[in-house]
Amino acid sequence: MTVVNGAAGITTLPYVAWAEPQDERQIVVSTRLRLARNLTGKSFPNRLSDAEAEQLGQEMARALPENENWQLLRLDELLERERGVLLEKHLLSRDILQHTCGRLLAVNAAQTLAIMLNEEDHLRIQAILPGLQPEAAWRELSALDDKLAEKLDFAYDGRLGYLTSCPSNLGTGLRASVMLHLPGLQLLGKLDGIFRQLAQAGFTVRGVYGEGSESRGGLFQISNQVTLGCSEEEIISRLKQLVEEIITQEQQARTWLKANRRDWLEDKIGRAVGVLVGAHLLTGKEAMEQISWVRLGLSMGLCRKIDWRELNLLMLSVQTPFLQTTAGRELAPQERDALRAKIARQYVSQ
Amino acid sequence: MTVVNGAAGITTLPYVAWAEPQDERQIVVSTRLRLARNLTGKSFPNRLSDAEAEQLGQEMARALPENENWQLLRLDELLERERGVLLEKHLLSRDILQHTCGRLLAVNAAQTLAIMLNEEDHLRIQAILPGLQPEAAWRELSALDDKLAEKLDFAYDGRLGYLTSCPSNLGTGLRASVMLHLPGLQLLGKLDGIFRQLAQAGFTVRGVYGEGSESRGGLFQISNQVTLGCSEEEIISRLKQLVEEIITQEQQARTWLKANRRDWLEDKIGRAVGVLVGAHLLTGKEAMEQISWVRLGLSMGLCRKIDWRELNLLMLSVQTPFLQTTAGRELAPQERDALRAKIARQYVSQ
Repeated sequence: MTVVNGAAGITTLPYVAWAEPQDERQIVVSTRLRLARNLTGKSFPNRLSDAEAEQLGQEMARALPENENWQLLRLDELLERERGVLLEKHLLSRDILQHTCGRLLAVNAAQTLAIMLNEEDHLRIQAILPGLQPEAAWRELSALDDKLAEKLDFAYDGRLGYLTSCPSNLGTGLRASVMLHLPGLQLLGKLDGIFRQLAQAGFTVRGVYGEGSESRGGLFQISNQVTLGCSEEEIISRLKQLVEEIITQEQQARTWLKANRRDWLEDKIGRAVGVLVGAHLLTGKEAMEQISWVRLGLSMGLCRKIDWRELNLLMLSVQTPFLQTTAGRELAPQERDALRAKIARQYVSQ
Repeated sequence: MTVVNGAAGITTLPYVAWAEPQDERQIVVSTRLRLARNLTGKSFPNRLSDAEAEQLGQEMARALPENENWQLLRLDELLERERGVLLEKHLLSRDILQHTCGRLLAVNAAQTLAIMLNEEDHLRIQAILPGLQPEAAWRELSALDDKLAEKLDFAYDGRLGYLTSCPSNLGTGLRASVMLHLPGLQLLGKLDGIFRQLAQAGFTVRGVYGEGSESRGGLFQISNQVTLGCSEEEIISRLKQLVEEIITQEQQARTWLKANRRDWLEDKIGRAVGVLVGAHLLTGKEAMEQISWVRLGLSMGLCRKIDWRELNLLMLSVQTPFLQTTAGRELAPQERDALRAKIARQYVSQ
């Protein structure tokens, strides 16, 4: 186990496991599962003093299974932009950033597993994989959970299940999320209806950065709302089924657009490539919008070949924390827009 | 002398003499001089019957000097899109299109000389050259005028000069025009002031298509308003002097923009190239705007090398009459936008 700072790559390079393309459609970007766990007889993190949090954090870090080559990061030693990078990679939550003392993040070498220590709960254990792979992610996550349970005493109630800081996580403590790219349904104005149906089925839709965040670039996160009264396998299989239905609808929307709005679609996609190749100033919002068109074009065979992995990494690289990490300093908005455009040109011109 | 229809190239190919680039700045696109002449003892064209116009037209056509290989077009035999092409090439005026019977257009092989017969006046004799060449254009025009005067009896009054249908052309009958590309001054909002000064000096500013037409793509036509009470040489030298002053101001504007708004400028220019390469639907207005940015970028060394001649020809080729001539039929607006984008891609991707 190594305690490292941002220099080791995890907070600097735009690599993430979920950037590896899973299929040619790329409607599902990634699957992310996380478990909330707490230790018996310990106050929840928000009730801990800094010293207690520090001590408990170290104690839990020592319980990390030996088989993974963990990188352990102290949140209070990270620069703001480094924390931002971890947020963009979905290895960190916004919540943990509110109080960084004694807060730790452990990430395995493949960046598929992450454990936040002393976030809202004592442990937030996460598995993230590219594409739609909830079962595989669950196998990895469940194995890690078992290993941790060998050394740590998780607070568990026979009737309520795992006890959590917030009642919304009670029971399984499982939040299963899938990030989808749904430009077709968005263009046809069909998302509202789908999201209503999802809500009725107990699933929520959020923007890329979790609760309260707006959608950018046609990306949406769907996750279970209910963690209590059903098994982990039931949650996962229900989510998978719903996502597969949405994929079918998104494909139908794209087929309709290709058949009925082809010129318009090719225009939007061609211009998006043109802007990414030609712009010298790009806001984050526009970058995500143009990348969304290019994703759509690529998946529909309506634009020249651009590597999927490169495009996924570009989505990360144009985010402010990455730009500032690339520059090695904080950047003013106009500087960010200029660097963002430069990076987009490099990625897309290749 | 040959009477030809559109198939011979003059109404189909986007070639024009003024597309040949004169210098690297390309602030002045072209210089155009025209003389209004009328025959003694004949009614002005708007008072002629169709039969009289027909007869007079043929009579004047026989007086065309033998040294040029004229192409003679009967306006009533041209398709609307062919007339449109001649209009875009500035070989024809809108006025002559109002009544086409007995109206003729003679163009030399180089397309530098054009004579409209039975337009507002019996003869409208024109010389058009690329860049700022008023003296050279005047030499060509004056020589042609002399040759015509050997065979035709021009109405001339010792006090008023050449008699014309409209009093605004009395005297020299000379209209000297220069087409300028002034995006720098336009961006800095300095055109209104310059145009007011020009008006005080007796010069008018018009859009690309003469009186009443709006500017497109940063292109402006400056011409003398006064044809009476001064010599042709005075009109030409005054125009040249004013244009040279405007060129200096435009260059200063560009220098200022490059020094103070470089990122913004490169962004606009880079995006314009991107849109011309990537768009699949382009309105005429947007095409001219984007081409204007590319012209500016090219002249300032702020975009990749695109051939000046190609860019000038593109300006013509994206105009509706050319699109319809290329397609060989009338096109609906959406069809035009699609073909315009296709042609822009071909020109700029090269």
